Amino acid sequence: MKKIEIYGLRIDREIVPGDDIAKLIITAAESNGVKILDGDIIVVCSKVVAKSENRIIFLESVKPSEEAIRIATATDKDPRLVELILRESREILKIERNNIITLTKHGIVGANAGIDQSNTGGTGRVVLLPIDPDTSAKNIRRRIKSELGIDTAVIVSDTYGRPFREGQINLAIGFAGICPYRDYRGLSDRDGYILRIKNIAIVDEIAAAAELVMGQSTENTPFAIVRGIEYSRCEDTSFKDIVMPKERWLFR
Amino acid sequence: MKKIEIYGLRIDREIVPGDDIAKLIITAAESNGVKILDGDIIVVCSKVVAKSENRIIFLESVKPSEEAIRIATATDKDPRLVELILRESREILKIERNNIITLTKHGIVGANAGIDQSNTGGTGRVVLLPIDPDTSAKNIRRRIKSELGIDTAVIVSDTYGRPFREGQINLAIGFAGICPYRDYRGLSDRDGYILRIKNIAIVDEIAAAAELVMGQSTENTPFAIVRGIEYSRCEDTSFKDIVMPKERWLFR
Repeated sequence: MKKIEIYGLRIDREIVPGDDIAKLIITAAESNGVKILDGDIIVVCSKVVAKSENRIIFLESVKPSEEAIRIATATDKDPRLVELILRESREILKIERNNIITLTKHGIVGANAGIDQSNTGGTGRVVLLPIDPDTSAKNIRRRIKSELGIDTAVIVSDTYGRPFREGQINLAIGFAGICPYRDYRGLSDRDGYILRIKNIAIVDEIAAAAELVMGQSTENTPFAIVRGIEYSRCEDTSFKDIVMPKERWLFR
Repeated sequence: MKKIEIYGLRIDREIVPGDDIAKLIITAAESNGVKILDGDIIVVCSKVVAKSENRIIFLESVKPSEEAIRIATATDKDPRLVELILRESREILKIERNNIITLTKHGIVGANAGIDQSNTGGTGRVVLLPIDPDTSAKNIRRRIKSELGIDTAVIVSDTYGRPFREGQINLAIGFAGICPYRDYRGLSDRDGYILRIKNIAIVDEIAAAAELVMGQSTENTPFAIVRGIEYSRCEDTSFKDIVMPKERWLFR
């Protein structure tokens, strides 16, 4: 029988710039009574990664452009926030009913370029996404390996809405040490039918699963350890493999 | 520390029309050595629900309409399959590059009205989605309660692509005994910022998590038991609470 275990790791303090996320994970695992094992998948909330990388911006330091002021008026947002959204985006996809949907420089489609106004560590500040969540994941993975001698996979996760469904779920925005897919294409089913589409984005499913223990920032559980999943270990993969190229988008 | 456990329940035979899914779950739990407990969330693959409800269609019995033949030619599909897609859909949203994206009568946006050509139990047949996955979930939940005297939640899950990401993940298409969301809106963060958006669709995250043990049909694991999740038990909710009304769609 297949069995998965997911442990939420609480920490008791705010993450600040310069924090060593790998060490915090190791310490949190110890204090939560979980031993990190070979093959464990560690899911890390993007906001703590971003904070440790000093992606915190004080809004008073931001001078909005004319375009930002125009969009801010149309969407009832702070023009300084909109300025940051513009700077973080490759493209603004939609401005509609107070929503700004962007394509970020990472290739992520979502609201407000992933800039977060909640749990930023204080008022008047926002947190941008990590510059390169794949590299963040790789660094955490490498540091855990060097500290513990243990091979893990790392997934950086964030919360996203869905175009045709209410509410949000967590998805992966960067990962290391794990092949993002379980690919069934070309395999034959029990009746000889060849599967043509099925290519399951397990990194997104793992990020979603981990949210169930991590919750949102108010729960002080920025890390999860996911154990028991069959996955392919690989080094040469990145978030680019998840990004659907724009020419394949069916909805615009 | 929060901890979730997810057990995949294998079964060794094909599901056929008339099968009692609740009894199969109870038997599979026993034979897999898992005791069903109060509060467990049982995830069930939509295809086995559909098969038990005799939603299997032999293509030779289907007479395609002219519209179906026209769309089938444009998308390189079997006209009889397209005829079924049309019948199951409230609306065809996109016909583009061999994809037919539909809004089903349930309110689900996805490819081919969710009609499946793989693992159908034999060649020349397809499996439609359950007519009403909420009712399917309610029935399974009620039957488990009456057989074991245990209160569980039930989620029916299926596999969906995403508009801006490659690959697919599992999502909920019907549920019973569980509030679909963990709602943070109106709550204050640690710094006093009021959350305005966060409303996590935990039923979708649970469906995604369960896929990690269930895999696709070839793995013969159509059921998962998810344990340890904090959720609100409720009766008066349905998939309609997940469906985003069309007037709120930002992408078309």
